[in-house]
Parts: sequence; C-alpha cells; structure tokens
Amino acid sequence: MADKVFKKLTVVGCSSESYQKAVEVGLSKARESLHGLAWFEVKEMRGGIGPDGKIEWQASIEVAFKLD
Amino acid sequence: MADKVFKKLTVVGCSSESYQKAVEVGLSKARESLHGLAWFEVKEMRGGIGPDGKIEWQASIEVAFKLD
Amino acid sequence: MADKVFKKLTVVGCSSESYQKAVEVGLSKARESLHGLAWFEVKEMRGGIGPDGKIEWQASIEVAFKLD
Amino acid sequence: MADKVFKKLTVVGCSSESYQKAVEVGLSKARESLHGLAWFEVKEMRGGIGPDGKIEWQASIEVAFKLD
Amino acid sequence: MADKVFKKLTVVGCSSESYQKAVEVGLSKARESLHGLAWFEVKEMRGGIGPDGKIEWQASIEVAFKLD
Amino acid sequence: MADKVFKKLTVVGCSSESYQKAVEVGLSKARESLHGLAWFEVKEMRGGIGPDGKIEWQASIEVAFKLD
Amino acid sequence: MADKVFKKLTVVGCSSESYQKAVEVGLSKARESLHGLAWFEVKEMRGGIGPDGKIEWQASIEVAFKLD
Amino acid sequence: MADKVFKKLTVVGCSSESYQKAVEVGLSKARESLHGLAWFEVKEMRGGIGPDGKIEWQASIEVAFKLD
Amino acid sequence: MADKVFKKLTVVGCSSESYQKAVEVGLSKARESLHGLAWFEVKEMRGGIGPDGKIEWQASIEVAFKLD
Amino acid sequence: MADKVFKKLTVVGCSSESYQKAVEVGLSKARESLHGLAWFEVKEMRGGIGPDGKIEWQASIEVAFKLD
Amino acid sequence: MADKVFKKLTVVGCSSESYQKAVEVGLSKARESLHGLAWFEVKEMRGGIGPDGKIEWQASIEVAFKLD
Amino acid sequence: MADKVFKKLTVVGCSSESYQKAVEVGLSKARESLHGLAWFEVKEMRGGIGPDGKIEWQASIEVAFKLD
Repeated sequence: MADKVFKKLTVVGCSSESYQKAVEVGLSKARESLHGLAWFEVKEMRGGIGPDGKIEWQASIEVAFKLD
Repeated sequence: MADKVFKKLTVVGCSSESYQKAVEVGLSKARESLHGLAWFEVKEMRGGIGPDGKIEWQASIEVAFKLD
Repeated sequence: MADKVFKKLTVVGCSSESYQKAVEVGLSKARESLHGLAWFEVKEMRGGIGPDGKIEWQASIEVAFKLD
Repeated sequence: MADKVFKKLTVVGCSSESYQKAVEVGLSKARESLHGLAWFEVKEMRGGIGPDGKIEWQASIEVAFKLD
Repeated sequence: MADKVFKKLTVVGCSSESYQKAVEVGLSKARESLHGLAWFEVKEMRGGIGPDGKIEWQASIEVAFKLD
Repeated sequence: MADKVFKKLTVVGCSSESYQKAVEVGLSKARESLHGLAWFEVKEMRGGIGPDGKIEWQASIEVAFKLD
Repeated sequence: MADKVFKKLTVVGCSSESYQKAVEVGLSKARESLHGLAWFEVKEMRGGIGPDGKIEWQASIEVAFKLD
Repeated sequence: MADKVFKKLTVVGCSSESYQKAVEVGLSKARESLHGLAWFEVKEMRGGIGPDGKIEWQASIEVAFKLD
Repeated sequence: MADKVFKKLTVVGCSSESYQKAVEVGLSKARESLHGLAWFEVKEMRGGIGPDGKIEWQASIEVAFKLD
Repeated sequence: MADKVFKKLTVVGCSSESYQKAVEVGLSKARESLHGLAWFEVKEMRGGIGPDGKIEWQASIEVAFKLD
Repeated sequence: MADKVFKKLTVVGCSSESYQKAVEVGLSKARESLHGLAWFEVKEMRGGIGPDGKIEWQASIEVAFKLD
Repeated sequence: MADKVFKKLTVVGCSSESYQKAVEVGLSKARESLHGLAWFEVKEMRGGIGPDGKIEWQASIEVAFKLD
C-alpha cells in the first residue's frame, strides 16, 4: 500500500423525484468532470417547496476522488 | 427584497413503506394546516419494529413556512 | 400500521428542586394543552443561580404528540 | 422561585442589510404574537443571493417565552 | 411498566440498489441472530464507487433489542 | 501501566421512577453478564408516555469494561 | 443595561449518590472561590465503577460568573 | 423543476472592521471567479489579535453555486 | 519555531447594541487582565429580553493567550 | 456487488507510549476474536495521568467487520 | 491588515505507517498544486484493513490557503 | 468514595515535530503550575504553515485536575 491522497468535494444534487434520485444526480454530475471517484458521504437532506407545491429533493454529498 | 420572517415546525412522518414515503407523509400533514411552506430539513431517521416484525419508517423533518 | 404524523414542541421546565422535577414540570404543562403525548427527549440541562444563591434547575425537553 | 415553564419557537429572520438586522427582524415578528419573550439563541446564519446579486441575510433563532 | 433494558448494536447494511434497501439489508441480518428488535436509528449514509462505476449504498444503523 | 483494552457497549435502561433509576437499571443489567465494568457515559435521555399517562424514563448509556 | 462580561469555568462534580448530587457538589465547590455565579450548563454525565462495584456519579458543568 | 446540481466551496473572509464585513469580503471574492452563486452558510466565526492589538475578524463561509 | 503553549478561557460579552459590540466587550475585558491574546472563537450567540423589551446581545467567546 | 452487512464495535486501546500505539493496541485486541475486520474510525482521544505522573494514552476506536 | 480571503480544501492523506505520516502525506500533496498554504485542521481519522491485515492510516484534513 | 471536584482547563500545545509531541508539550506546561492532574481529552488538532513551509503541530487539550 503506497501513500495515496484523495480530495473531497461537496455537491448538492436536486431532483423532483426522491432523495435517492437526488444523490444519484449529484454523483452523475461529479463523474462528468472527476476521475477516480472512490466514496461519498451524505451530509444533509433538505428540500424546497415551490409556490405550486412541487417538491425539490436536495441532497448534500461529499465525494472523494483519488489524486494522481 | 423586503424583510421576511419564516417559522419552523418539526413533524415526524411515519410510513410502513419507506423513508421517502415517511417524509412525504409528514409534509402532506404539514400542508393541511400551514400556508406558505417554503423548505424543510430532514433531522433524524429512525424506525420502529412491531412484535410482528412490521417496520415503521420514521422521519423527523423541520418545515419552514412564511409568516404574513 | 397506517401512516401517522407527530408534531414536536420544545418546552423548558424549571424547578427549585431537581432536574428530575424540572422535566416533570415541563411535561405536566405540555399535557394541559396537548393530547396524544407520545415521547420526549431531554435536549439541555442548565440552571440559574439567584442573588440569594437559590438554584433554578432548567430542563429543555422536546415533546412529541400525535396529530389526528 | 415557583415552578415555571417556557416554550421555544424557531423563526428565521431575513434582511437585505445585515445579520444583526435579520435577528432583530425575527425578534420583532415574534413579539407581535407572543407575550413574555425571555431569551433567544442564534442557531444558524445563512444567506441567499438573488440573480441580481442582492444578498438576503437569514438568521435562524430559537426564542423562548414564558407560559402562563 | 416494569424496569426494562435494551441493548444497542451498530450494523452497516450495503446494497447495490438504494439507501432504503441498504437499511433493510442491515435490519434483516440483525434479525437473524437477535430477538426482540424494537427500534433503530440511521446514523450515517455513505457509499462506495467501484472501478467499474458501480455504486454500493451503505447505511449505518443502530438497532435496539430488548434483553430478557 | 501495561497495555490495556476496554470494550464499550450501549444499553438503554428504562424505569417508571426517574432518570437516576433508569441509569442504575441499565448498569445493573450490564453487570449481570459483564466483568470488569470500569466507567460509563450517559448518551441520551428520552422518555415514553403511555396511553394512561404513565411515564417511562429511558437513559441510553455506554458502558466500558476491561478485556482480559 | 450596561455592558457586562461573564467568565465560564468547567468543573466536574463527583458523588456516590446521584447525578443531581454530583451537580450540586460541583456548584458548591465553585461557590467557595467565585462570586457572582449566574448560571450553569451540564455538559457531560459520566460515571466510574470501582473494583468493589461502588458507583461514582460524575457531572461536568460549565459555570458562569460575572466579572466586576 | 429539472435536475440541478450545485457545488459548495468554503472561503474564509477576513476584515479589520466586523464580522458582517468579513462575510461580505468572502462573498465578494467568491463572486470574482464563480458564476451562479445561490446561497451560503456561515460555518465559523473566529478572530486574530495582532501584537499591536489590532483585531482581524474571520468568517468561514460555505458558498454554493449552480453547475451548468 | 520553538515549542509554545496557549491557554484558552471562555468569556461572555454582553451589549445592548449588537453582537459585534458584545464580542468586542468580551475581548476588551479579557485584555485587561491577560497578556499575549492571540486568537478567539465565537462559540454561541444568545440574547436576553428584559420586561421592558430591551434586548441584551450575548456572545460567548473562547480566547487564547500565550503562556510565557 | 452482493448485499453485505458489517457490524461495528467500539474498543478503547491504552498505551503508555503514544496515541498511535494506543490505536494499534486496540486493533490488535479486536483482531484476536474477530474475523473480517475492514475499517475503523478514531472517535475519541483521552488520557489518564497516574499519581506518579505516568501518562496513559487512550484511543476510542470503532472497528467494523464483515458478517458472514 | 487589509482584507484577505482564504479558500479551504479537504484532502485525505493515507499512509501505511502512522496517522502523523498520513497528515504529512496529505499536506505534501496539497503543496504541490497550491501556493500560500496557511493552516489546516484534522477532521477525521479513519483506517482501512486489507485482507492481508495491512493497515492504511487515513487522515482527513482541511487545508486553507490565501487567495491572491 | 467521598465527594470530589475537578476543574478543567484548556491548553493548546504546539510543536514542530508531531501531534504526539504537541500534546506532551501542552501537558508539561500544565503540570508546571497545576497539582493533581488526573486526565485529559484531545479536543482539536490543527496546524500552522509558515512562509518557509515549516509546520507547527497544534493540539488543543482539556486537562482536569483535582481541587483540594
């Protein structure tokens, strides 16, 4: 096991469907620009309610990826 | 942006289906008596297990609504 | 197990006797106006000391009661 | 010192000026409908930024008032 | 209500499907060896991402069961 | 001082009398099956209220005992 | 209301009787050397168990007193 | 409401004037390089005192901005 | 960089003006009796409301100073 | 990735040498009786000081191991 | 003291030797790409255990560096 | 076991070598002026980085000593 370093970023995924989907949306976006994603942690689950009553599920997740 | 004030209430939604459903149950109830719901935060996820093994999913959520 | 919703309120009971009494004082008051009290959680234990050295035991408790 | 009970409510005051003003806005609103306000605690300081860059200072405060 | 004692254990359920499933996996395993499961609390939600991009949903839950 | 290792367990003691009693009930039970109890920490104080208004005081305590 | 400043100290009261007594023991000691004690907060409740099974109740309390 | 993802960054704004100013300094800097700032949260308020007694007010804030 | 040791004290500054002023009041008092103040951290922001409606802003700050 | 379940235990390793050693002592003991240790988390670092001034470094660690 | 802004990043340093080394590994990596590193905070200490029993010490650290 | 009271103080030990050394430096200083040191708790681990890249390891520790 050689020395390794990971970097952590926090993203907030938002979905009109569910918290599960909100986390997946956040992870998908993170994957577009980052290589070596290794793990993540859900930090907060909030939500917004529009004037029309529509709910936006918001999941704050910290993702870790390996630095080369 | 004029001054605004929101009030926060905590409700615990319970469902026999899932956590997602438990949060929705809590929000639905809050909407029955409150106007101007704006956002919410999941504070705790617990559950009860009945003698028959049935699971009750319990989500504690803090909802904020605008005061007139 | 049908869907259920509970609401949580925070009260601070104060007693000149003890913390145990302070929690009981807070619960008694909550019962006067609320039906369906189901559980509670002690959140904070503080106290005040008067100029005469008298101690006031203060217990912050979150009580949950069932919404109809 | 007779037994006393306080109740706690959480409000979020919003101001376009400053955090100090946001707390005051929240307290003023609480005073309109509540008697016997005794103390408060700042729980969270957040803010929103509009599309035009205007900042809304948001202070979440828990206020305690004496129950008769 | 006679005196009762519960014991708490922490398990981490892992699923390739969702957090909801991960909690259920953890509870199922706990039930295999423990009697009198009464309630549980979700403590942490994390996840692992494999080299192939597969996601493992991990839920840390504290389960309480009654001691005889 | 040779190397030593302790193990920690969490139990929840319940009493119809008081929190003090609830902690003692939890400790008594822990002593029945564990040797070398050394210290404990109160982690949570909650309570249940029955339909008849009876209160059950619940204290969550982490007990540490020495491993041989 | 002129400007005032309080100082906070942390003491750990220990009693062989109860937590209530442990807090009182800590407060009594604080009073011996400090004037103007105004309020206190219980921060931690722990305990030690002697080889003979005797329990020592330990309460960590932060006391605030007014500076002249 | 289509799916959206926000990213969070933490900056520490420092000012010789006040905490309010320190937060504003941090937000101004964040705006120079980031588009779509949406909200922020004050995480920590600290300060430094120079040998000459000058105070530096330091506010740690987490800012969220929308990813395209 | 030789070894150094700092000591931390907690003071609560109170002002009838603002939180900013409350922190400054606390720091001024700390400076009267302590040399080598180096940094501080705001731990809590509370407030008291008098019977006449006057607000007292209270800031709990931990100050660190170098030991010789 | 099939469903998996881990169990977590908390041990406190004590060493007269250092914190690093204390953690290793705790892990070594855990390994004696548990198979499938996968990861651990340091939860607390405390220490005891004997009447002779000898220091005992104590590390509280939560270890997770795979259930078959 | 002119206004200054720092940015914070979180890295996780991993070492097969010790926690001290893990932090140093993380800091070294951060230095490769960042100028003006000013301070850091250890946020979490975890570890992984390989099938061969090898331990990987993991330290999560938040590093702050000055923005020009 | 007679009633006992301990007092807690917070010191920050700094070392150019390691965290282990930083804690020892803090404890050594505490011992110079305090009798009856009984235990301590590491509360925070931070560090400073000088313009020359030298690292200062800083450990915040709460020490408890027995009051006569």
